[in-house]
Amino acid sequence: MAELPNISHDITPPTRWNRDFEKIADDLKPELQRCVRTPLRIIKFEPDEKQYFGVRPSSTSHAIGQLPTLVWGKGDTFTLDFGIHMVGYVSFQLESRGNHMDAPCRLRLTFGESPLDVTLGMDNVKSWLSTSWLPDEIINIDMCPETVVLPRRYAFRFLRIDIIDTSAMFKVAFSNVKCEHVSAISQDQQLDIPQFKTPLLQDIDHVSISTLRDCMQTVFEDGPRRDRRLWLGDLRLQALSNYATFRDFSLVKRNIYQFAAVVREDGSIPACVFEKPIFTPSVDYIVDYDALFSAVVHDYVVATGDFATGHTLWPTILGCVKRALSHVNPETNVFEEDRARGWKFLDWELKLDHNAGSHGVLVYCLKSINALATLLGKDPPFEEKVAQLAEGAKHFLSPAGVFISGSKSQISYASASWLVLAEVFPRDVARDALLKTLEHPEVIKPLTPYLWHHVCDALATVGCFEKCIEIMTDYWGGMVKAGADTFWEAYNPDDSHASPYGDVRTNSFCHAWSCTPTYLLRTKLKDFAVVEGSSKTTTVSALDEAWIKKQTAEG
Amino acid sequence: MAELPNISHDITPPTRWNRDFEKIADDLKPELQRCVRTPLRIIKFEPDEKQYFGVRPSSTSHAIGQLPTLVWGKGDTFTLDFGIHMVGYVSFQLESRGNHMDAPCRLRLTFGESPLDVTLGMDNVKSWLSTSWLPDEIINIDMCPETVVLPRRYAFRFLRIDIIDTSAMFKVAFSNVKCEHVSAISQDQQLDIPQFKTPLLQDIDHVSISTLRDCMQTVFEDGPRRDRRLWLGDLRLQALSNYATFRDFSLVKRNIYQFAAVVREDGSIPACVFEKPIFTPSVDYIVDYDALFSAVVHDYVVATGDFATGHTLWPTILGCVKRALSHVNPETNVFEEDRARGWKFLDWELKLDHNAGSHGVLVYCLKSINALATLLGKDPPFEEKVAQLAEGAKHFLSPAGVFISGSKSQISYASASWLVLAEVFPRDVARDALLKTLEHPEVIKPLTPYLWHHVCDALATVGCFEKCIEIMTDYWGGMVKAGADTFWEAYNPDDSHASPYGDVRTNSFCHAWSCTPTYLLRTKLKDFAVVEGSSKTTTVSALDEAWIKKQTAEG
Repeated sequence: MAELPNISHDITPPTRWNRDFEKIADDLKPELQRCVRTPLRIIKFEPDEKQYFGVRPSSTSHAIGQLPTLVWGKGDTFTLDFGIHMVGYVSFQLESRGNHMDAPCRLRLTFGESPLDVTLGMDNVKSWLSTSWLPDEIINIDMCPETVVLPRRYAFRFLRIDIIDTSAMFKVAFSNVKCEHVSAISQDQQLDIPQFKTPLLQDIDHVSISTLRDCMQTVFEDGPRRDRRLWLGDLRLQALSNYATFRDFSLVKRNIYQFAAVVREDGSIPACVFEKPIFTPSVDYIVDYDALFSAVVHDYVVATGDFATGHTLWPTILGCVKRALSHVNPETNVFEEDRARGWKFLDWELKLDHNAGSHGVLVYCLKSINALATLLGKDPPFEEKVAQLAEGAKHFLSPAGVFISGSKSQISYASASWLVLAEVFPRDVARDALLKTLEHPEVIKPLTPYLWHHVCDALATVGCFEKCIEIMTDYWGGMVKAGADTFWEAYNPDDSHASPYGDVRTNSFCHAWSCTPTYLLRTKLKDFAVVEGSSKTTTVSALDEAWIKKQTAEG
Repeated sequence: MAELPNISHDITPPTRWNRDFEKIADDLKPELQRCVRTPLRIIKFEPDEKQYFGVRPSSTSHAIGQLPTLVWGKGDTFTLDFGIHMVGYVSFQLESRGNHMDAPCRLRLTFGESPLDVTLGMDNVKSWLSTSWLPDEIINIDMCPETVVLPRRYAFRFLRIDIIDTSAMFKVAFSNVKCEHVSAISQDQQLDIPQFKTPLLQDIDHVSISTLRDCMQTVFEDGPRRDRRLWLGDLRLQALSNYATFRDFSLVKRNIYQFAAVVREDGSIPACVFEKPIFTPSVDYIVDYDALFSAVVHDYVVATGDFATGHTLWPTILGCVKRALSHVNPETNVFEEDRARGWKFLDWELKLDHNAGSHGVLVYCLKSINALATLLGKDPPFEEKVAQLAEGAKHFLSPAGVFISGSKSQISYASASWLVLAEVFPRDVARDALLKTLEHPEVIKPLTPYLWHHVCDALATVGCFEKCIEIMTDYWGGMVKAGADTFWEAYNPDDSHASPYGDVRTNSFCHAWSCTPTYLLRTKLKDFAVVEGSSKTTTVSALDEAWIKKQTAEG
């Protein structure tokens, strides 16, 4: 997730701050795990039309071991490849060469998640997003030798260094370049790695895990490069992937309690919260995210057996669907987008009609609550409501057997996916309608990996494993083939410069809501995608080393 | 001083490192005195053709006290006026306003010594000098509130802040902006302030003192903004101004011993030394600077009565004139520029013929040595040589009574000034020749304040006080009228954008070799310029306050 401009924020009722919940969350704050990574290659990017980004990294004539012996002056530039996406803190030793250093040294450092970051450079970026997010720094070093320690955290694989100026009297040399990588997940963390039926699926699983790991900091961040916030909808997907891999339950619990600590008086939960400088809810409220809090807690209790949390948060869960419920027409039992105020999301597609999809989300959430109630030994509170909404859902199925939404009978992946995930139609009806919808010539397709996930999840839910894998292979596999170490915030197979923000250099290339293939592959798709009995336990460290080796051998 | 490009450095004989002298220098390292200054006005510069720089600072509608209440977003800019030139360390408090800070804040800070620095901005500077010296920083602040502490030292009066970006959700506010000003000279330092006969002379004296003070750090720097090195020729002028004002003898002694610590095996003294990262001689050797070391020590012993230092450095002093002496034709007793290798300076004017001027410098230095010998109870070693060179000097006086130099009989201020300062002609002859030379239609004029000083000194030496004051009023007074708080490295009355480096933004506006008017006004010009018996003792602090009040009242 990340925020678009001109969202009309609700006139916010006061937050009913729960300091006890905040304390629970505080106590669960993880100590970040650290490991030091060093650059593995001095590379250059050469034009290559066959590559998605139009460039191909290749080694230069200098081995990385020669770096301390190389001297650089005004106008020189070089790029270091660390071989893996990292989130961390960079330092290096800078020394002067030649006569005495008689002027400062001015450097520009550009931290590249994608090859475009370090080949396009960061000048003249036109974006309505804050250009303060651009991953470059201009620094001045007055005196060498100096250990340059950059205080900010960066997310990157490539580090381009431009020597803006030294002087006629001296040049500079770099040594001991390193990045202290940080994550809530340790390099020693063990996890199961199944053998997938194709190498591409294996890579998709791996890149999902790397994405998840790099987003797991003191909260589940949406993107470690940009935004860096805990969003509720993204948390749900991260948590599901986490249960299938790292199984770090305490970070999920912490983040659940953070949301529960800042519920509004009307029961609504903010779409995102800020951790710093002090813990604060944002002014963003999204009706579908709000309701999905119930699913997050249900998933968590199922994964962990932590019934106590389910009990503690029960009133919060009942509150979080109130806003979505207020959109339901009591006579037709149909969700009506314009019936109440509030931002309905589902996807960034601005043309999207949200009626059908939101109806599906609401049913999905009410069912989560009923299921959680059963787990907790309570009466399921929304059985009747679910039955009513299941009846209402028929409104969204056209006589032609496709899912439609709104006065213009809009056909979209969003509507279809969520109505299928709500499981309100017989499975064969749902499957047929889903497939018909996806193939409809006028269908509105997803813009974001967030919705692509729900499309895949819907397909897997109705047993369309082949179609699901096909989309996963095209979409997430396309990113892998384009060189992704982590999955991106946005991916347009036809345009590597596409951006929801006006300039691709403001995109995030490690983004939480893209990390879900590992979840689907290891759960709903398991029988279809995994070689039976093939799972082996390994460490994050071993996984990383193998990936780095492969990356740097290919160049 | 500052270094020009493409100077052919001597093939340097090894340095005969004297660690005892280095230790003496180390022990004299001053603890820097600190005082905190805050901005006094939020200003804007408006076009004004009557002003030297073409702009006039004026207060904005906001009083400085309102600064913490003002909020700034993308593209905003404002300029703070501290009312006085400072050398120091800047910090400020940055806070976000509006919704939660959801992106970093990127700022550009430009530290202006002159109005051009903060009105032209620092983009597209074309200079053969290192552009790393440009006084701007681009910084990113991830989270507010933050106390932003800039680690580097700046020399400036104006601070322009450009808000490159915040986000649509927040803006920023600045408070507690301050500069911790540093100098070897304390605000509590007392000094005598005579009443001068005109307000402009009073200001010239004041600006000289401010220039000197801001250059006095752990060494006598040539310019606190740029170069920041201890140059031998500049030290001589700073020391003379210092004896007439602050009388900080230990800093002079420290710097003298620094030069004496790194004499080459041929006796030559480097033109400059570097203090950091470790004490080192530069590769620059200037024949005239080398010889002038003798005058620096002689002046020091006269000012302090520290005969021990004179004795200790006696061999060094005898060595420092060797290279200059090696240029003298033993048959004619005339200094011949091309007779030996080595950079002869006198001024940056590239057309300058150095024969006559260097001859003058050499005699001046040999006389200093003779005088020092007498003070120390030694036999003056160069009496015969001075007599021979005095005879040789006649070679440079044309039948028409002007000073000439070289095969093309070049007429220059440089030749005339140094031959007069050598005092090798009867005073009336010297005076007439000097005045004729200065008024000659083809005369080569000075480019630098360094040579302008020697012109003034020569005029004062032969009693031409009125002409001396006229030049001082025109030249240094011109800078004062243009708004100088400190005297500049270079001043062209006809072109405020002139620069020896290709762009005025690389010029230094507080430069040691421009600080000498206070020395001449208080010594050789005293009877002419000062109201008799008018001197009063005051503190640096009181002087600064009066100056600031005047500066900020005028706007």
